[in-house]
Amino acid sequence: MPEVLTSRYLFGPGPSNCYPEVTAALGYPVIGHLDPVFIERLDRTCAGLRTVWGTRNARTLPLSATGSGGMEAAFVNTVSDGDVAVIAVNGLFGERMCEVARRCGATVVRVDHEWGQPVDAERVLAAHPHPKVIAAVHAETSTGVLSDVAPLGAGKGDALLIVDAVTSIGGLELLADDWGIDVGYAGTQKCLGAPPGLSPFTVSERAFERRIKEPRSWYLDIGLLGGYVGAASGSRTYHHTAPVTMIAGLEAGLDRILAEGLAAVQARHRAAGAELRDGLEAMGLELFAAEGSRLPSLTTVKVPDGVDSAAVRAYLLENFSTEIGSGAGAFTSTVWRIGMMGPNANRASVKLVLGALEEAIAKA
Amino acid sequence: MPEVLTSRYLFGPGPSNCYPEVTAALGYPVIGHLDPVFIERLDRTCAGLRTVWGTRNARTLPLSATGSGGMEAAFVNTVSDGDVAVIAVNGLFGERMCEVARRCGATVVRVDHEWGQPVDAERVLAAHPHPKVIAAVHAETSTGVLSDVAPLGAGKGDALLIVDAVTSIGGLELLADDWGIDVGYAGTQKCLGAPPGLSPFTVSERAFERRIKEPRSWYLDIGLLGGYVGAASGSRTYHHTAPVTMIAGLEAGLDRILAEGLAAVQARHRAAGAELRDGLEAMGLELFAAEGSRLPSLTTVKVPDGVDSAAVRAYLLENFSTEIGSGAGAFTSTVWRIGMMGPNANRASVKLVLGALEEAIAKA
Repeated sequence: MPEVLTSRYLFGPGPSNCYPEVTAALGYPVIGHLDPVFIERLDRTCAGLRTVWGTRNARTLPLSATGSGGMEAAFVNTVSDGDVAVIAVNGLFGERMCEVARRCGATVVRVDHEWGQPVDAERVLAAHPHPKVIAAVHAETSTGVLSDVAPLGAGKGDALLIVDAVTSIGGLELLADDWGIDVGYAGTQKCLGAPPGLSPFTVSERAFERRIKEPRSWYLDIGLLGGYVGAASGSRTYHHTAPVTMIAGLEAGLDRILAEGLAAVQARHRAAGAELRDGLEAMGLELFAAEGSRLPSLTTVKVPDGVDSAAVRAYLLENFSTEIGSGAGAFTSTVWRIGMMGPNANRASVKLVLGALEEAIAKA
Repeated sequence: MPEVLTSRYLFGPGPSNCYPEVTAALGYPVIGHLDPVFIERLDRTCAGLRTVWGTRNARTLPLSATGSGGMEAAFVNTVSDGDVAVIAVNGLFGERMCEVARRCGATVVRVDHEWGQPVDAERVLAAHPHPKVIAAVHAETSTGVLSDVAPLGAGKGDALLIVDAVTSIGGLELLADDWGIDVGYAGTQKCLGAPPGLSPFTVSERAFERRIKEPRSWYLDIGLLGGYVGAASGSRTYHHTAPVTMIAGLEAGLDRILAEGLAAVQARHRAAGAELRDGLEAMGLELFAAEGSRLPSLTTVKVPDGVDSAAVRAYLLENFSTEIGSGAGAFTSTVWRIGMMGPNANRASVKLVLGALEEAIAKA
């Protein structure tokens, strides 16, 4: 452990700072994964996840893996050798979906978009006559782009719709049932204000019926995991030892969000994002994500010509213990990513970031 | 959250109670997974894991999954379609290995043992002339049996040796290099005194060279994960967002163990296990695991005739907020499992459990 505990303002693409209720819950006494008190906690957590997912799916649970594990679970349970997966790629996480689906044996049909642009549903739907799955990222963490996935749900036909909601869940409107999402995965370390390590996951009845009955992965087998949370029958089957502490933290984050009110939390994210964008433009900076498709929770902004991106980030860390993110992929040194997520989605955060960034650009 | 926080004495097969240093670390401020402070923490955690594994393997890291995810990582990186896996089965986790290996495409050669007996290395080594892997459980959590895996390492020939050390790591002698373990996985919620959710994992150079180059799992691909911890080159590649909070907890547990001294911690586990066994026998109870192969960290004892196993466990929970485990598999109602792991491996725990159990058997 470092001699002095390091405390950071986390305005990168995640993890964000945690809600204080979450931090407290992480220090609860550990209880057994079969303890009646834990079972109640898991049930409440799944119920809270249904609310933030906007779903009634019985199979809605926190997977014992990070968001990337959730992505793998989505594909390993739905595609196998030769199944066609149409994947919208408008950033790093769409790219990753292609790799994960390919390893599961799928024939991947990529629908590429310029980074910074939202998903074009028409092109995606036209890419193949009868795919097994169609997949897209709701909120691209690599580019700060929000895409409307509802048209994919409306036009999916027989396909299953897989959606990545890592950077939207808990902070942005997300209506899995209304939008026709069949399999959704997310992360806990963004708008939910909890640490990374779990993947909120949801599966529709339709997807469950059409799942791979014996996926290559035992650990992520949604048939077995449904038993673990008692989703199907109300009775539980031991599968693996649940990460009880992380689930206590997630439960506390969900409690906090629902106590504040999901609509109020979403409004707070929208307001912080809008004020940050305005402030950045007022400083003469240019936003990266296409207008009209900008994520409230994660703003991308171009690094001004002649400014050393890494030096600015190091200056922020050193002088303000404040983290913002570099760009992703080809934009590593030409874009910054600034998150306002969970407890950080507020006007004070905006003032902090704008003031610190202005000084860092001038002095770094 | 329940109105009053439930605190338990956890003497089941895991999770155990956490070391107080771990609980404190779980409440540290969250920091970014690319923060220099976190990178240092991850490095120190990997170094501590090398010590408790008894290895110099560069690729020693906390996997972002539970112990069962570690099991899957061990097989998905070493076997693929048609590879022969010889698996020693002397309990539930050996059984699970067969299922996981089969799903990875392996041709599984099971070597069955009576539950409660240790692994017979001669039989395992004779089971197939040239397997790709040989696998065994060092400390069977389902039966409380300790097996000597060193003869498997000595006799493995060209095969890779996979070992499950979930219930031994951090509390029992474990010498991965000396014993010829090529791939090892473990859990954090037993003798390491941390919460469940990570899997300490180690891979020898020999296994790394002979790994599946593109495993079906992207999330558990040890080639990519080696980059994530900078094991190969010293430079790091982003793979997934590390569960920073869980890793802070694990680091604190390792620090605590190494400050106390690994030998002293092991002696504490041995002493607690021995005193518990003596006390149970003095009460007239019969131990389940074969004499000479009894785990210090987890004692299995037969439920006396005419005693309702579940009623006793419920009595303990209700009257003493104390958890012990049921048996596993066919022994669910005829065996109890009593863990003395991590901070609970001490003489006071023994007195608590013996006293409470005696009353529960009499009154439940």
